[in-house]
Amino acid sequence: MSGESIFNVEFRSDGVCVGKLRNEVTNEALIPFKVTRTLATDEGRFQGGEDTAPTPLDYFLTGLVGCVMTQIRVFAKKLAIDLSDLEVGCSAKWDAVADPVGPYQARPAGFEISIDLTSDAPADKVKDLIAASKRACFVEATLAQANDIKHSLRINDGEAVSV
Amino acid sequence: MSGESIFNVEFRSDGVCVGKLRNEVTNEALIPFKVTRTLATDEGRFQGGEDTAPTPLDYFLTGLVGCVMTQIRVFAKKLAIDLSDLEVGCSAKWDAVADPVGPYQARPAGFEISIDLTSDAPADKVKDLIAASKRACFVEATLAQANDIKHSLRINDGEAVSV
Repeated sequence: MSGESIFNVEFRSDGVCVGKLRNEVTNEALIPFKVTRTLATDEGRFQGGEDTAPTPLDYFLTGLVGCVMTQIRVFAKKLAIDLSDLEVGCSAKWDAVADPVGPYQARPAGFEISIDLTSDAPADKVKDLIAASKRACFVEATLAQANDIKHSLRINDGEAVSV
Repeated sequence: MSGESIFNVEFRSDGVCVGKLRNEVTNEALIPFKVTRTLATDEGRFQGGEDTAPTPLDYFLTGLVGCVMTQIRVFAKKLAIDLSDLEVGCSAKWDAVADPVGPYQARPAGFEISIDLTSDAPADKVKDLIAASKRACFVEATLAQANDIKHSLRINDGEAVSV
């Protein structure tokens, strides 16, 4: 990856509890555009939820597939590569394995992304487009690396501490 | 992480293009429960979209925050730790940097997750709960590691090739 930043992207999300397992998450795009949207998550009844909204994994995978698709569509135009009938699929797997404290821990087991499209462009040009779109997809680039995730915890309105 | 699988999670997502930059993604939970849900993504007008739906990053971050919250709520019950007024925030940053082919490539610049809650339990118990929830959150565990992401490409109904 090369050095200089062309532009930045920054989001702030804030979730509150509503209902048994329903969460309402307000997402604020801060940079490079400003827009605020609230989305709700829930779980099915047999998991203790009330099934009032899609699950977190539905959102997560929609974000991944939607980001890959958007990147391919936008870059095809910018690179003047003919493209139609784009379909993107994703199979995602996780294992839940034993944990010393909680009921289990999550072990991600990989993603398989299938891209299906119609194009009059040479196959090599299409492959270059897909490779560039993979590098540019904010979600896929995030999944491809081990990310720096910091946590702070504040109990009973006390001081926030790193955890 | 320890070895044996307690249960598996498997999703299949399929996205189609609808409108200028709108995508409709059908998410099918296959294991351990079965449910199908279609969610739409779009982009704002200045990005070439029609603003008919949240962006992929809205979905992605709702998935992350919703998954962390759900895990904390479910595990608090299972571990019998008193908990109320849970709020989870997340600041997420990316840089777009130069790319040899496309307009830019994405460089994820980290996540800061803030957890705010009320509890009568000892602070150490709450910290153990948060640590276990981080390990168990399917989305956070995915972001914390470099994932295996395979791609296949099929042009003009030809043979699918790895890309």
